[in-house]
Amino acid sequence: MDFAISDKMQTILEMIDEFVEKELIPMEPEFLTRSFADMVPALKEKRNMVKKMELWGPQIPKELGGMGLSLVEHGLVSESLGRSPLGHYVFGCQAPDAGNIEILHLHGTEEQKEMYLKPLAAGDIRSAFSMTEVDMAGSNPVMLETTAVKDGDDYVINGHKWYTTAAEGAKFTIVMAVTNPDAPSYLQASMIIVPTDTPGFNLVRNLPVMGEKGSDYASHAEILFQSCRVPQKNLLGPEGHGFVIAQERLGPGRIHHCMRWLGICKRCFDLMCRRANQRMILPDGSTLATRQIIREWVADSAAEMQAARLMTLHAAWKIDKYGAREARYDISFIKFMVANTMLRVIDRALQVHGGLGMTDDTILAFYYRHERAARIYDGADEVHKMYVAKRILRDYEGKK
Amino acid sequence: MDFAISDKMQTILEMIDEFVEKELIPMEPEFLTRSFADMVPALKEKRNMVKKMELWGPQIPKELGGMGLSLVEHGLVSESLGRSPLGHYVFGCQAPDAGNIEILHLHGTEEQKEMYLKPLAAGDIRSAFSMTEVDMAGSNPVMLETTAVKDGDDYVINGHKWYTTAAEGAKFTIVMAVTNPDAPSYLQASMIIVPTDTPGFNLVRNLPVMGEKGSDYASHAEILFQSCRVPQKNLLGPEGHGFVIAQERLGPGRIHHCMRWLGICKRCFDLMCRRANQRMILPDGSTLATRQIIREWVADSAAEMQAARLMTLHAAWKIDKYGAREARYDISFIKFMVANTMLRVIDRALQVHGGLGMTDDTILAFYYRHERAARIYDGADEVHKMYVAKRILRDYEGKK
Amino acid sequence: MDFAISDKMQTILEMIDEFVEKELIPMEPEFLTRSFADMVPALKEKRNMVKKMELWGPQIPKELGGMGLSLVEHGLVSESLGRSPLGHYVFGCQAPDAGNIEILHLHGTEEQKEMYLKPLAAGDIRSAFSMTEVDMAGSNPVMLETTAVKDGDDYVINGHKWYTTAAEGAKFTIVMAVTNPDAPSYLQASMIIVPTDTPGFNLVRNLPVMGEKGSDYASHAEILFQSCRVPQKNLLGPEGHGFVIAQERLGPGRIHHCMRWLGICKRCFDLMCRRANQRMILPDGSTLATRQIIREWVADSAAEMQAARLMTLHAAWKIDKYGAREARYDISFIKFMVANTMLRVIDRALQVHGGLGMTDDTILAFYYRHERAARIYDGADEVHKMYVAKRILRDYEGKK
Amino acid sequence: MDFAISDKMQTILEMIDEFVEKELIPMEPEFLTRSFADMVPALKEKRNMVKKMELWGPQIPKELGGMGLSLVEHGLVSESLGRSPLGHYVFGCQAPDAGNIEILHLHGTEEQKEMYLKPLAAGDIRSAFSMTEVDMAGSNPVMLETTAVKDGDDYVINGHKWYTTAAEGAKFTIVMAVTNPDAPSYLQASMIIVPTDTPGFNLVRNLPVMGEKGSDYASHAEILFQSCRVPQKNLLGPEGHGFVIAQERLGPGRIHHCMRWLGICKRCFDLMCRRANQRMILPDGSTLATRQIIREWVADSAAEMQAARLMTLHAAWKIDKYGAREARYDISFIKFMVANTMLRVIDRALQVHGGLGMTDDTILAFYYRHERAARIYDGADEVHKMYVAKRILRDYEGKK
Repeated sequence: MDFAISDKMQTILEMIDEFVEKELIPMEPEFLTRSFADMVPALKEKRNMVKKMELWGPQIPKELGGMGLSLVEHGLVSESLGRSPLGHYVFGCQAPDAGNIEILHLHGTEEQKEMYLKPLAAGDIRSAFSMTEVDMAGSNPVMLETTAVKDGDDYVINGHKWYTTAAEGAKFTIVMAVTNPDAPSYLQASMIIVPTDTPGFNLVRNLPVMGEKGSDYASHAEILFQSCRVPQKNLLGPEGHGFVIAQERLGPGRIHHCMRWLGICKRCFDLMCRRANQRMILPDGSTLATRQIIREWVADSAAEMQAARLMTLHAAWKIDKYGAREARYDISFIKFMVANTMLRVIDRALQVHGGLGMTDDTILAFYYRHERAARIYDGADEVHKMYVAKRILRDYEGKK
Repeated sequence: MDFAISDKMQTILEMIDEFVEKELIPMEPEFLTRSFADMVPALKEKRNMVKKMELWGPQIPKELGGMGLSLVEHGLVSESLGRSPLGHYVFGCQAPDAGNIEILHLHGTEEQKEMYLKPLAAGDIRSAFSMTEVDMAGSNPVMLETTAVKDGDDYVINGHKWYTTAAEGAKFTIVMAVTNPDAPSYLQASMIIVPTDTPGFNLVRNLPVMGEKGSDYASHAEILFQSCRVPQKNLLGPEGHGFVIAQERLGPGRIHHCMRWLGICKRCFDLMCRRANQRMILPDGSTLATRQIIREWVADSAAEMQAARLMTLHAAWKIDKYGAREARYDISFIKFMVANTMLRVIDRALQVHGGLGMTDDTILAFYYRHERAARIYDGADEVHKMYVAKRILRDYEGKK
Repeated sequence: MDFAISDKMQTILEMIDEFVEKELIPMEPEFLTRSFADMVPALKEKRNMVKKMELWGPQIPKELGGMGLSLVEHGLVSESLGRSPLGHYVFGCQAPDAGNIEILHLHGTEEQKEMYLKPLAAGDIRSAFSMTEVDMAGSNPVMLETTAVKDGDDYVINGHKWYTTAAEGAKFTIVMAVTNPDAPSYLQASMIIVPTDTPGFNLVRNLPVMGEKGSDYASHAEILFQSCRVPQKNLLGPEGHGFVIAQERLGPGRIHHCMRWLGICKRCFDLMCRRANQRMILPDGSTLATRQIIREWVADSAAEMQAARLMTLHAAWKIDKYGAREARYDISFIKFMVANTMLRVIDRALQVHGGLGMTDDTILAFYYRHERAARIYDGADEVHKMYVAKRILRDYEGKK
Repeated sequence: MDFAISDKMQTILEMIDEFVEKELIPMEPEFLTRSFADMVPALKEKRNMVKKMELWGPQIPKELGGMGLSLVEHGLVSESLGRSPLGHYVFGCQAPDAGNIEILHLHGTEEQKEMYLKPLAAGDIRSAFSMTEVDMAGSNPVMLETTAVKDGDDYVINGHKWYTTAAEGAKFTIVMAVTNPDAPSYLQASMIIVPTDTPGFNLVRNLPVMGEKGSDYASHAEILFQSCRVPQKNLLGPEGHGFVIAQERLGPGRIHHCMRWLGICKRCFDLMCRRANQRMILPDGSTLATRQIIREWVADSAAEMQAARLMTLHAAWKIDKYGAREARYDISFIKFMVANTMLRVIDRALQVHGGLGMTDDTILAFYYRHERAARIYDGADEVHKMYVAKRILRDYEGKK
């Protein structure tokens, strides 16, 4: 066993830490008060700086202009970037583009790669991913209602999606639709590329999430596909393999999310400790940092973050070494462990800030309201717990 | 012991329940998408309906046009009203006006009553309460920095307040300021009435709370008092008695809040149970309601709400019967018990709603983000725990 | 609503509190180091004192020589007695005799009352209750395996029971056995009185519970009924009504248990607060009571105990006033709420005592190990949660 | 980063797992019902088997006949052994002998090594460690009351210790006593070897811990040192360095404990999963394993164990690589994280077993009652949390 991080990675992480600190965190007040759309030009400049430093696209293959890091390495980068809500976007590894790049890289045709992957990996366009449906329990693929029916050389897509993240301003979305209704349930759906200017692709609204409709990249759309017609060559991967490909994505995607969440933990923990040291509570100059209750939150948070971090890095290592299948229990474990650790740390940090914590004068209230979703998306905690427990209990069958 | 509710109250509660259901809940989508200021006219109509039903001002003394209910009775009403964020406002028992009415009623001069109390009790004007300071730990009165210095017949007030709830559009605020800096710490501050059109009363901004600045009644202001001059006859109650009066308010105010929180619990519990019954999770028609994890949340929520409710009603009864002083442990207990019960119930209800729970298509996300403050205002949970434990442990001193 | 306790009850409770303090708690070191059997004579003397004070059998009907208290009143008594493991036994209201007295009183024939009820109510004999089976999930009556088959004028009983509390030294047990295997599941079993000297009643062993086999009243037996023959007149209540009668018992029995648990809470809370005040942790004389973490445990415990207490008294009041059926949700709520409150309070008190808490030099370690069963017997917490949630969710069906 | 375990260690672990399974677990019923003293001969045979397999003393240096494993390696072994309460004893790595061997190895004189270390490492004698005092808060070295005063060539020791584990039957104890009362507080005490047959070494009693006084190795003694005279050459390490040496021990000792606790987790988790698979709860054959609540416990336990395990192995690696000082935060983290994980897993496993879990028919009730001490000894959880939080907050001082 060796928990050491290589010198190369150490250097990269220090560069990124500094960039986040000096270039991104200072932009947050603007991020909290203006629309994301307004910030796009300024963020483009930051992206150019990142590219010059050769830190663009940590997870993007080298041949596409990225750094081509392993999953463990990208995990560490993702933790560093997660310390600001702007981190992943500026470094070119934001969801859902990161996942779409991966899928296009592994399953795209040459034409698809040319048209969609290259500009996406370069950060010249953005993309979306349309899977979740309004009336469908997201965790159950059998209940997908969106359909793509062949007609001539086209697919004609009909369906109602929501939580299509970042659809506003995206060049295309990858939509999950039933193409083979008579196949076994896990082989009914396919992924299809739909340019957002296709007639029948209707962006109904940006969802008002926690009081905010957002804009551009920072939004979640409700989409109505109404007789939306795209050529069959827009099929991504084999027909009927939509869920198989989605499953593949899950492991690495989970690592990205979890390490990003750990970055959020770090940021909030920082804010909590600094506030505790500064907040005077008695005329004699005593601060919150002298109080046992605050100290217990600090100790619990530090320990839980360490636990969550090691679990996630271990899962990443296992995927790197043995593949996602071998690591599937670990991938479920980290979903609920890390999400809940993050939410506890955010909550404690907010409480230490008192009234200030409720305002947007710090980043805490933003994390508090928006990261609550971490227990829901990508399969609710409860779905993962049931999945993994069922398998563990099955492993015990026959044992006395 | 008798836990029964009188027939009279039963009837009143049914009327209110129905009003909330039919008149207020349907206004919530508007409340979530438009500014409060825009809704004021429509809400005024609802208030008129309430007045016609003789349900206006449940806690307001009869001579001022209210119902003059006891604390236990008003607690029950507050629970019913709490089921919508619009309830208390429409029935004329919203904070901070309710508290200000109480203070003016008990401590106001005849002139103050005529000028401020009467129109306030009638709902013709609104008021604010300026106590919390930006750099002061709210729970410690010793650290108040706002001062009111006598100059001729006036007080000249200087200081920096925030979380002055509902200041936008208020006719006056009651400000807490140090008038007697040399007195013992609990006797240094006074309450002074400051009309909001007084020069030197500067509303700096509405605080961006959880992403929303709000407007009119639904806002929290940052206020700069800069050589703000008011006549000394605006002193409310005896000089130096600011904290004494504030303490008096706390007991009844806590009951109002806690029972309002219990109304929020009821509403969220309702939404949770309905959603669980409706949300299909399998093609065979199984719903979330068939799942043990959901059922555990339902059982835990129901039991915790019942516990919190009885504690609050018991505390109200004790205040009604023996006064707030005798009930001071109970008043602290309910602060942290009910606030946390509410936040757990909201959280579970949101989780049961999945992605929908994150949106403003239900009221849950609003409660989730804004009611988080319940663990902070009126003394953070931790302050109450330390207060009550210290006294309990002191009661044990000498016992072997 | 009126939470006041009558003067009469106040006086009774003070007498009992004093008795527990002066007569019973001093016997605990002996209780913890000797066998219960050895203590029986000394306890008999205490019982005589109780009888002279006219405090015997608080829940026993007056015509049987008890105090005939209402459920609310007995609840309060049970809380006071619960402060020592010897309380209920010395006052004649210990399980399972208390329940058996109730059943015999309501359902016994004249002959059964003469033979079993009278001496039991007088404390001259003891009894047991044989329901739980080794291989049966206790909560599911459908799975009872013990049978009672008619043969001539007798029942011939076969079956394997355990957790027959206090069987050692009991004069008789009431056994639950299937008499009508073809009836609907809830009407298959009957209660039958079996004197413990009947051939075929075999006490296999006292179960080693948490390292202790115990003796006499303080024991839990494993019983093998092997062709155990008793006359059919020993049937208690109507044939097939075993579960119906058991259900009736549950409500009042739950109140007894919960209020006893609250007595345990009180005792442990007392010990915790005293220890915190006395335990010096620094050479300057600072005690544990000055520490915030300890104070948080004190505040949380006090608040949770208050909540649990009000819930239980409310449930008792509801049973007194409307019957157990109306109170069935409440009866389930208190099961898991009070048991868990107790276990948390015990745990905190133990932790405050450090190494001392692990020893039998205080009563805490006894409560810690033996009261863990509270989450299991009378239906595991989880069973109650599922029961009550299922019904609540059903109440919501049809509501939109 | 590399989380892989070497093939050599994999083989060793498989051998030990099998030994625990085949040789030790079958002895547990005897362990739970007879005195430890009675079992010593049978356990000696097992020790001989272990020695023949060359698995004796995993942590003991090779030159003393042990395996000389690194801390990470011994951690893995300790996890495997922890699956039975007999594991560590039979493999020669039980506390407090393991710690005493380490101290004697590092600090003993040649004569001490000859007389005490060699036979101890060989398992021919046993030892004890007398540090905790009855009236002293164990975590504060300043408050030690036992003294060792020089008189001629001797030390004369007076003091009152308890929780001297395994003193009954031990050949000697290492006692911590104040030798330099005028030195700075951390340099006042020394370690002194006291043979148990020295006059003035009085074993007052074995403490009744959770109802059991235990015997021989499985006991905790209260010791009165009354003018107990030993030669000064029995001083172990430099005079005044008692706490310095004790501190050194803490890191490795913590790893041993934590990995043993993780072994207990594994065992209880195993029992829980098997029971869940076997326990029928419905006539249709449904088992507990089909229930979501049980599944949630399985998932939570598995994830928490994984987290605790990685944290402990990481801390061990850090000590191996950088020394205990660099790992001091980690060493505190694992104390409270692993102890609480273990207690939760034990508790869930017990609950899944229902009434059976309360009996000594499984090992669960033993772990439940005795391992509760894990949150107390070696510094209560709270002490570690305050220690580590204080340091973390200090690290933040000056940062803005």
